[in-house]
Amino acid sequence: MNTKILAPTPSAYQYPLLIKSLLLSGQRYEPGREIVYGDQVRYDYRTLNQRICKLANVLTEAGIGAGDTVAVMDWDSHRYLEAYFAVPMIGAVLHHVNIRLSPDQIAYTMNHAEDDLVLVHDDFLAIAESLNDQLPTVRGYIQLCDDGKPLSTSLNAVGEYESLLADAGDHYDFPDFDENSIATTFYTTGTTGNPKGVYFSHRQLVLHTLNMATTLGAYEGLPLLRSDDVYMPMTPMFHVHAWGVPYVATMMGVKQVYPGRYEPNKLVKLFRDEKVTFSHGVPAVLQMILGCDEAKDTDLSGWKLLTGGSAPTLGLAQEMAERGILFHTAYGMSETCPLLTATYLHTDARDLDMSDQMPIRIKTGMPCGMVDLRIVDPEGNDVAHDGEAMGEVVVRAPWLTQGYSKEPEKGEELWANGWLHTGDVGSIDETGVLQIKDRIKDVIKTGGEWISSLELENLISQHEGVGEVAVVGVPDEKWDERPLAMVVPVAGADISAELIQQHLTQFVDSGRINKWAIPQDINVVTEIPKTSVGKINKKLIREQV
Amino acid sequence: MNTKILAPTPSAYQYPLLIKSLLLSGQRYEPGREIVYGDQVRYDYRTLNQRICKLANVLTEAGIGAGDTVAVMDWDSHRYLEAYFAVPMIGAVLHHVNIRLSPDQIAYTMNHAEDDLVLVHDDFLAIAESLNDQLPTVRGYIQLCDDGKPLSTSLNAVGEYESLLADAGDHYDFPDFDENSIATTFYTTGTTGNPKGVYFSHRQLVLHTLNMATTLGAYEGLPLLRSDDVYMPMTPMFHVHAWGVPYVATMMGVKQVYPGRYEPNKLVKLFRDEKVTFSHGVPAVLQMILGCDEAKDTDLSGWKLLTGGSAPTLGLAQEMAERGILFHTAYGMSETCPLLTATYLHTDARDLDMSDQMPIRIKTGMPCGMVDLRIVDPEGNDVAHDGEAMGEVVVRAPWLTQGYSKEPEKGEELWANGWLHTGDVGSIDETGVLQIKDRIKDVIKTGGEWISSLELENLISQHEGVGEVAVVGVPDEKWDERPLAMVVPVAGADISAELIQQHLTQFVDSGRINKWAIPQDINVVTEIPKTSVGKINKKLIREQV
Repeated sequence: MNTKILAPTPSAYQYPLLIKSLLLSGQRYEPGREIVYGDQVRYDYRTLNQRICKLANVLTEAGIGAGDTVAVMDWDSHRYLEAYFAVPMIGAVLHHVNIRLSPDQIAYTMNHAEDDLVLVHDDFLAIAESLNDQLPTVRGYIQLCDDGKPLSTSLNAVGEYESLLADAGDHYDFPDFDENSIATTFYTTGTTGNPKGVYFSHRQLVLHTLNMATTLGAYEGLPLLRSDDVYMPMTPMFHVHAWGVPYVATMMGVKQVYPGRYEPNKLVKLFRDEKVTFSHGVPAVLQMILGCDEAKDTDLSGWKLLTGGSAPTLGLAQEMAERGILFHTAYGMSETCPLLTATYLHTDARDLDMSDQMPIRIKTGMPCGMVDLRIVDPEGNDVAHDGEAMGEVVVRAPWLTQGYSKEPEKGEELWANGWLHTGDVGSIDETGVLQIKDRIKDVIKTGGEWISSLELENLISQHEGVGEVAVVGVPDEKWDERPLAMVVPVAGADISAELIQQHLTQFVDSGRINKWAIPQDINVVTEIPKTSVGKINKKLIREQV
Repeated sequence: MNTKILAPTPSAYQYPLLIKSLLLSGQRYEPGREIVYGDQVRYDYRTLNQRICKLANVLTEAGIGAGDTVAVMDWDSHRYLEAYFAVPMIGAVLHHVNIRLSPDQIAYTMNHAEDDLVLVHDDFLAIAESLNDQLPTVRGYIQLCDDGKPLSTSLNAVGEYESLLADAGDHYDFPDFDENSIATTFYTTGTTGNPKGVYFSHRQLVLHTLNMATTLGAYEGLPLLRSDDVYMPMTPMFHVHAWGVPYVATMMGVKQVYPGRYEPNKLVKLFRDEKVTFSHGVPAVLQMILGCDEAKDTDLSGWKLLTGGSAPTLGLAQEMAERGILFHTAYGMSETCPLLTATYLHTDARDLDMSDQMPIRIKTGMPCGMVDLRIVDPEGNDVAHDGEAMGEVVVRAPWLTQGYSKEPEKGEELWANGWLHTGDVGSIDETGVLQIKDRIKDVIKTGGEWISSLELENLISQHEGVGEVAVVGVPDEKWDERPLAMVVPVAGADISAELIQQHLTQFVDSGRINKWAIPQDINVVTEIPKTSVGKINKKLIREQV
C-alpha cells in the first residue's frame, strides 16, 4: 500500500531499533556522570562505554557470536549493567539467571535456554560447579569477583572478568542487524510446573525504554526519573531487567548506583552517601528498608519510590508518606517487559495532602502510552469501568513477550484472540484507574458474578481472632462456584463460622462486600497448605476440598 | 539469527507502530482537557477522539482509502489536528500543502503528490479554483470555514467540514497495517529547482513522537512539555508537522491551543487568556511577538519558547531572558521530521544566571536520544570536536525521510554513504554542543580549510558604514577557493576594500577570524542580487563573478 508517492527506497535510510542506539545519548549529555558499585567501584560514562566495548571483545574472543546465549549469575553490579549492553549488542542473547531458584530449577532454565557461556560470581560458584555436569551446552565460564582474587575452581574458566577486560581492546564496531533479533531471555515461575521462558527483542527493549522514559519523566506532576536524578534499583537486575530502568537511566545519562547483594542497612547507607533520588522495589523490600536500623536516623524525605510486584498496603504507603517519601505504584509482569500501568495523578488529585493521595497511589495506576489495556469477561467482552465490575486484564503493547520459549501451545494460550492474557483480574474506575483484585485462577465465579478471593481474605483477616485465612472457590451445582474459607485462629481465640459470617455482615452496608459473597462454608483448621516458598497453595486446597 | 530459543512465533503479539496508538493515552489521562481554536471552538479530548472517528467516516464516504492522498490547505486549527490523525489512520497519506508557496508551486506539489481530495479553507478557495483545471488527480474538495457559511464555489465540493462531521458516525474501527506505510508528505523548497517531496511512515512518526516526548520532558532541568502544560504552536502545522509537537501533546493529553492565522497580537492574547506555557517558532516570529502592542502590557514570564529554523541572535535571546521567557533552541529540517538536536544544559550551566545561559541556549544544542550525529570532512572523516573545526553535519536516526519522492537520484545523494547529508556545516565543542556555521554550498573551501560565509558577513556587517553584505567563494588556482565580499555602503558612507580589511584585522587577535580568511576581493556595489523571496542569491553572485 501507499506506493504511489514512494521513490525506490534506498536502503541507506533504514535504522533498526537496536540496544546500541540507547548508548548514544547518555554519554553525550553527561560523560562525567558516575556508575557506582557499592563502596568498591566508581567510574564515569566514558569508561562505561569503553568497558562495554572491552566486554564485547572478551566475549568475541571466547567464541561467542550472534545467536549464542550468555548467562549471568551476579548480584546487582556495574558488571551486570555492562552485560545488559555488550551481550545483545554483539547479537548474542542475555540469559538473566534467577539465582533465587533451586539448583534444579537453575539447571532446568540453563539447559532450556541452551546457555553457551556463563558469567558467574564467586558467591554462586559452588552452585555452578555442582550443576556443571548437567549443563552440556555450556562451553565455559567467566569468573566475577569483587577483590580481583577469584576462587580456584574445577570449572572450565576463561578467566576473571576484570583481568580479561584489562587486556581487551576498548573499541568494538557493533554491527547493525534485524531489530527483531532476541536480546534477552529469563524465566517466570508459577506455583506448578517448570519455569517458562519469556524473551524480548532489541526492538521491544528499545520501545519499552523510550516509553518508560516518557512515563517516568513527562507525565507526572513530579517526574520520577530525569537526567539529574540518581538511580539505585532495589529490584534485582535478573528480574525483568530491573523493570527496564537501567536502560532508561543509561539513555538519559543518569548517575547509577548498584548495591550488590540487597541488605537493608547497606541500601539506606548508599541512598544517603550517594544522594540517591529514585529507586524501585516490591513492597516487602520497601517495608524492610523502613524498618532497618540505618533508616531510623536517616532523612528519607524526597526519595522517589516506585513499587510493584504485589499490592502495597495503605499502611505501608502512609508510613512512607510520613517519612516524606514520594510513593508511586506500577503494574506489569515478566511477560510484559514489564511496564503496563503506573500511578497517574489528575490535576485535582495533585493538590491533595500526600496522605490523601495515598489511596490513589497504591492502586495499580493508569495504562502508559502505547498500552492498549482492557478488562474483559470470559467471553472477551469489555466490562464496565465503574470501579466495581471485575474482568481479566488483557493487553496489547509493542514490548510484550512473543510467547513462551519452546512452548508454542502455552504461548497461544497467553495470546488467545490476539491479546496477552495477564491472568490478573481487576476493575477500572470512572477516572480510568486500574485496581488488580485477584489472580483469575483464584477468583470465585458465582452466579455470573466474580468474587475476589483476596478481598474476602482481607476482610476476614480483620477479625481479631483470625491468624491466617485462605479463600478458594469450590464447585457448586446451582451457583457454578461458591467461596470456601479456611481459617486458622490465633492462639486461644474462640472462632466459629457464625462469628466470621457475623463479622463480614458489617461490610455489606458500606458496599465492600455483597451479601451473597459471604461464604456459607467456613472451616476452622489448624493449618493451611503452603507451597515450597511459603505461599498459600490454593491449587492443593481446591484439590483437597 | 537468534532462532535457537524461539518458539514458533504466534503473529498475535505483533504490534505495528501506527499513529492510532498515539491516541490511546492522552484521552485516558485527561479526557476533560481542552482543544481550543482561537476564540471560536473549544472541546475536550473525548470529543477530539469522536471527531477523528467522524472525519475518518467522512473521508471513507468520500471514497478515500488506503494509499490515497488527502491535501490540507488550512490555517492552524482543531480541524488540522483532526486530519493529523484521521487521514493516516485510515491508511491514506496526508499532504501538508505549503500555503506560502506561489500558486504555480502549489500546483506543482499537488500534482507531484497526486492529491485525491483537498480540505480547503475558504481563505484559499480562490487559489484552489484558479488551479483546479491543472489538477487532474483531484477528485473533490471539502470546504473549511469558521462560521458554518462556506463560500459558494465552482469546485466539485463534497460538502462543508462541520456539516459533514455532524452527519457522520462517531465510531471507526481503525485497521492495523504495515507500520512502514507512508503517513505524511510535504515539500521542501530551495533557492533553485522545483520543491522536493519528503515523506514519513507511521513507524517514523511514532518513534519521533516518543523520542521528542523524552527530549522535551525528561532531559532538561526544566521540562518544556509535560502533561500539565498548555501548548500553542507558532510554527505552521503544514511545516514539518509543526515540528511534531501536536503528536506529542496529544499522546500526553496536553491542553492545545491552535491560533488560526498567525497575528502577533492575537498570539499574545491567546497566550494570556488560555494560560499557554509552551510554544515554538522561528526567531523572526518570536521577534514579532516581543515587539507587538499586546506584548507591552503582558507578563510573558514563564513562557517556555523553543526556537529553530535559523539561528537566534544573542540580542533576541537576551531580550527574552529579560522578559522572563525560558528560551531553548532546537535544530532540524524538513528532511529530518525534524528533531535532531536541542538545548541541553549541563548541571553546572543550570546554576548560571539566565542571561549567562543564553550564549549556550542560542547554539543548536546536543543531539537527542537515538540520533547519531557526526561532523565530517569531504572525505567523510570525523573532524575534531574543538569548537573550531567545521564539517558537514551528517546524521542517522529512526525518523529521517527515506529519500525524495519520485526523485531517486536526489535521494541517493541525500543518503550518500548511508548517512543523511544535511547540507549544513557546523562545529562541535568539547562539551558536545553543535553550532551550525553555514550551508555547505556557501562555505568557502580555501587551502584545505573552511571559512563560514555567514561568519564573515557577520563580522563585516559590524562596520558602521556597511549597509548590506554578501560573501561567496570564487575559484582560485592556488587555494581552490577564495572569499569574495560584495558590500553595499549605508547612504553617504565612505567605504573601501582597505577599510573593510582593516576592520576585519581587529578580530584576528581574538581568534574570531584567521588572517588568511580576510578577503582580498571586496567589491563595493550598489545592490546585491536577491531571490524572489528576498534572500541573497549566492548562486547568482557566483555565476556573475
